[in-house]
Amino acid sequence: MPATSRAVVPTTVRGVTVHHLTPIEDARGRLTAGEFGTEIPFTPKRYFLVYDVPVDQVRGQHAHRRCAQFLVCVRGSVLVRVDDGAASENIELTTPSTGLFVPPMVWGEQHRYSADAVLLVFASEHYDADDYVREYSEFLRLAGG
Amino acid sequence: MPATSRAVVPTTVRGVTVHHLTPIEDARGRLTAGEFGTEIPFTPKRYFLVYDVPVDQVRGQHAHRRCAQFLVCVRGSVLVRVDDGAASENIELTTPSTGLFVPPMVWGEQHRYSADAVLLVFASEHYDADDYVREYSEFLRLAGG
Repeated sequence: MPATSRAVVPTTVRGVTVHHLTPIEDARGRLTAGEFGTEIPFTPKRYFLVYDVPVDQVRGQHAHRRCAQFLVCVRGSVLVRVDDGAASENIELTTPSTGLFVPPMVWGEQHRYSADAVLLVFASEHYDADDYVREYSEFLRLAGG
Repeated sequence: MPATSRAVVPTTVRGVTVHHLTPIEDARGRLTAGEFGTEIPFTPKRYFLVYDVPVDQVRGQHAHRRCAQFLVCVRGSVLVRVDDGAASENIELTTPSTGLFVPPMVWGEQHRYSADAVLLVFASEHYDADDYVREYSEFLRLAGG
């Protein structure tokens, strides 16, 4: 299938964008495609899937120093909070055809995973424990600098 | 999170391997991670998601000349048929922690999508209509040569 059309919508949070990919629909179901480096702003070195999250649990709660991420809720729904230290927004992801680009040095949290939710995340860097900023006070200091 | 441990299991179909990634589990849910170029045998140029497929529909039914793919059923289940022209296997994907590597010039079909199934596919190449072999008779001729 060809690359699907898309719209990129900015948010009030620095560098965070919402990407709408148009699914291809026919009698055989739906298909949403994304090309890395164009529709998704980077080529990933890693992916991860988050699932079976109890609805009252919060995940994320960190920023990355260098790693960018692209989040797609491929089933169910999840509320993603993004925060650049000055502005923050809560963005609900409810469809496989929406992606959320989160650049480095943006604090991210995920709330209200639905029971069937599966969150797919593409990461621009390999795993590196030193890339995580896990204390919000440190994040604010770094983001302010 | 660090890269998860994994096992790679060959099949009887040329170059097709089943990849078991170990999920990380805690009170906040489950997470399965894969690094491209190591756990997944290539760095993707594209991904696509297939969903809302009626259970009686068949998808795929083609081979790729150059493109390799890595299939993960991230929700529900799907039966994948792979065929190298000599041997074939039906492999049921039922968990986000299993991936199926399909090299070029292997015929692939997907059957029996469950109502909630979401199939995630990583592709090693950008979309190219000329990369598809859509006639099984042509596939057999090319695979035999």
